[in-house]
Order: sequence, then C-alpha cells, then structure tokens
Amino acid sequence: MGHRGKFISFEGPDGAGKTSVLTTIQELLAPALGERLIVTREPGGDPIAEQIRSVILDRKNQAMDVRTEALLYAASRRQHVVSTILPALENGQLVLCDRFVDSSIAYQGAGRKIGEQSIAEINHFATQGLLPAKTIYFDIPVSVGLKRIAQHRDTKKIDRLDVETVDFHERVHAGYDRLINQNPDRYVVIDASQELDVVVAEALTAIQAVAPEYFE
Amino acid sequence: MGHRGKFISFEGPDGAGKTSVLTTIQELLAPALGERLIVTREPGGDPIAEQIRSVILDRKNQAMDVRTEALLYAASRRQHVVSTILPALENGQLVLCDRFVDSSIAYQGAGRKIGEQSIAEINHFATQGLLPAKTIYFDIPVSVGLKRIAQHRDTKKIDRLDVETVDFHERVHAGYDRLINQNPDRYVVIDASQELDVVVAEALTAIQAVAPEYFE
Ligand SMILES: Nc1ncnc2c1ncn2[C@@H]1O[C@H](COP(=O)(O)OP(=O)(O)O)[C@@H](O)[C@H]1O
Ligand SMILES: Nc1ncnc2c1ncn2[C@@H]1O[C@H](COP(=O)(O)OP(=O)(O)O)[C@@H](O)[C@H]1O
Ligand SMILES: [Mg+2]
Ligand SMILES: [Mg+2]
Repeated sequence: MGHRGKFISFEGPDGAGKTSVLTTIQELLAPALGERLIVTREPGGDPIAEQIRSVILDRKNQAMDVRTEALLYAASRRQHVVSTILPALENGQLVLCDRFVDSSIAYQGAGRKIGEQSIAEINHFATQGLLPAKTIYFDIPVSVGLKRIAQHRDTKKIDRLDVETVDFHERVHAGYDRLINQNPDRYVVIDASQELDVVVAEALTAIQAVAPEYFE
Repeated sequence: MGHRGKFISFEGPDGAGKTSVLTTIQELLAPALGERLIVTREPGGDPIAEQIRSVILDRKNQAMDVRTEALLYAASRRQHVVSTILPALENGQLVLCDRFVDSSIAYQGAGRKIGEQSIAEINHFATQGLLPAKTIYFDIPVSVGLKRIAQHRDTKKIDRLDVETVDFHERVHAGYDRLINQNPDRYVVIDASQELDVVVAEALTAIQAVAPEYFE
C-alpha cells in the first residue's frame, strides 16, 4: 500500500476486554509515542460516520433490515477510513483500532447469517482493500464475555443491538474462528479470560513485535 | 423470483421528465387500477430510508466520500425494497418506480467514477438480485435536461447533489448508454425531448406491453 504508518486492529466478542486493554495501552504508550500513536474506533468522531451510526443504533429503527444495517456499517467504516485511518497512516502514525472489517464479517456475516463472503465484499468496496498489518484477537468463551458485560452494564444505555440471543453470540464466535483459520499470518490470538494486566502485557508484546519501529 | 406483481423502473438523466410522466400516468391509471398500482421512488416513505437519505442530502456533509454516499444509497434502496417493493410484488401489484439500481450505476459508478461493476455489486447485495421486468429509459441530451431543470427549479430547495458539472452529467449519460447496450431486452428507450403528452403515451404503451395482465 505504501503507507508509512502501521495499522493494528483489536477484534473479539463483546466483553472480551478490547476497549479496556486499548485504554490501558494508550495510557502506557502515550508518554513515549505522543502524537505518533492514534487509538480509534468507529465512528471515530467523524461527523458523517456519527450520523450514520446514530441511524443504526436508534431504538426506533426496529424495522431495519439486516442488509440495510450491514450497508450502513460499511458506509460508516468508509468514512472513518477516509477521515481518520488513511490520513494517520500517511502521516506515519501507529493506528490501533477497536474493531474493523472482521467485526462485520463475524457479526453481520455469521451472527446475522447474511453470509461472510457478501459482507467481505461490501467491506472491500468500503476499504478499497485496506487491511490491518496485524489483528489482535481477544479469545474468550461467549458466556464469560456476556457475564462481564452484564455485571458492568449501565442498563439505561442499552441500545437496539444489545438484545441478542446467546445463539447469535455463538455464531459470531464461530465466525471469528473461521477468520482466524483463514488469516493465520494476520491474527495473533490472546487468551482474554486472564487477568487484565496479563492481557495488556500480551497485547503490548504483539504490538511491539509487529511495529518495532515505534519502540526503538 | 416467483413474485406475482410486476416491477417497472423509470430511468434517465435529470430533467428528462420521469417524475412528470409518472405523475400523469398515475392519474391516468388510478381509476381503472386502483390499489393494484403503486408509484414509488426512493426513499419511498420508509422512515429508515428517509433518515439515510437525509444524511446523504445534508448540505453540511460536504466531506462525504463518494463511496460512503454509494453505500448509503444502497442502504436506503435496500430498505425501500424490503418495506415497499417486495411486499407490493408479493401482493400482485404493478410497481412503477422512479429510479432504481441503474441510477446508482450511472451516477455513482460512471458519474462519480467509482466504477460501474463495483456499484452493481453493492447494489446486488442490497436488492438480492431483484431487477425490474422492464426499464423505461427517458432519452434526452444532457443540455436539454439541464435547461428544463434550470427553468423550473426552486433555488431555495437546492441540495448537496445539485451542484454538478456538465462533465459529470455527460459521464452519467454515457453510463446509461452502456447499461442500455448491456441490457437490450430489459430497456425500452423513449425520446424524452418530445412533448410531454407524447412521452406519456409512449411510456403507457411500454407499460401495457410488459404488463398486459393489468389492462385486460
Ligand atoms: N481481563 C479482564 N478480566 C475481568 N474483567 C474484564 C477484563 N477485561 C475487561 N473486563 C471487564 O469486562 C467488561 C467488558 O470489557 P470491555 O473492555 O468493554 O470489552 P469489549 O470492549 O471487548 O467489549 C468491562 O466491564 C471490563 O471492566
Ligand atoms: N416532455 C417535456 N417537455 C418539456 N418540459 C418537460 C417535459 N417533461 C418534463 N418537463 C419539465 O422538465 C422539468 C424536469 O422534469 P421532471 O419530471 O422533474 O424530470 P426528472 O424527474 O426526469 O428529473 C420539469 O420542470 C418538467 O415540468
Ligand atoms: Mg468495546
Ligand atoms: Mg424526478
């Protein structure tokens, strides 16, 4: 691609600890990396991506078709890529992203049963083939992830997408397993059921291995 | 497909007269067809499709990438298909639709230079292959269409998409020409530079030819 920066995504089921670990890693790396580090997640603060996201999450939109939802995720992702990720990479930055295309393949493709290949295709249109140099996968049994979320969730903030069956989450998990098998070089799998500081340490090791130029 | 209704789309450049002709045809056919006729256009009154459309048209969204726009059109179309067109077809209705997938191929694919094949693919995802039984094409030189619009336009209602170059409209026209060549059986081409009542009569003839069961 000729980008000068490096792009790493964090993937895994809900409650696996992606956001917690990213927040900790940002605090740990900020002193040394400063502006060379960007931590982001869709919609990434882009006003257009935010508008799209609010249509997806709006609790009034119960009649939204699953393919409409998938196309809206792809649209929001496109805008995030163009407004945030590509400029950061061209700027030489290390980009850590909380979920990317693989989340759509696992959630919309496998979870909602649209089909992983179709979701990969519309996302390829959205990203023009941009892929992370590495994807750190937070591996956790569905039941453990859901339990973590249930314990800490602010029930007032529940949105349209939170009300999913355990079957749905099992399909998502199986979708991720297929992605890992299909992309063994891109994926690093971490046991996310460990203590938070252990997971943070392993994620940090993976980041340093793929992006040593930021740690010289 | 097994649909019992019949689906006909109206296509052509801006100012060709699609909406004028559809409005007249609706008035002419309503007495005989009643509820067996549906005239629609995206977003078709579907609340979710309307929300998506308002994101596309919002004048504040100047930073919208062309691929974001294309995905949003596909999302809005998906919702229109699911909420309006498919139920009408399953209900045995005659569906006349002001613009459909071919507009995206011509406008986003050719006009905005994203590529016609890519646009066809994301729209195939959106429609799951639903195509009109017939597409009535309103053929008009770009300059004539633009002149018609300029003469009648309410300048207060101008939106983000109205400010296009003549080059853009020429590319759209060329995109339509390719679609007509690639789909000779689906397309009926009408000379839309004729008087409105002549264009209406020719469109009506085309509709009766493809949907005789509604005119027995
Ligand atoms: N390693 C861990 N052990 C125990 N609880 C954790 C761990 N990592 C995260 N959590 C808790 O689990 C919940 C979900 O974590 P979060 O980082 O939001 O997961 P994700 O972003 O993957 O959905 C949070 O309440 C968080 O405090
Ligand atoms: N056959 C025609 N001759 C002259 N003017 C026309 C004709 N058809 C439409 N118009 C005018 O041209 C303008 C654009 O027509 P419209 O139906 O909105 O086109 P479209 O929906 O294809 O963009 C309108 O002001 C309409 O009154
Ligand atoms: Mg999270
Ligand atoms: Mg019109």
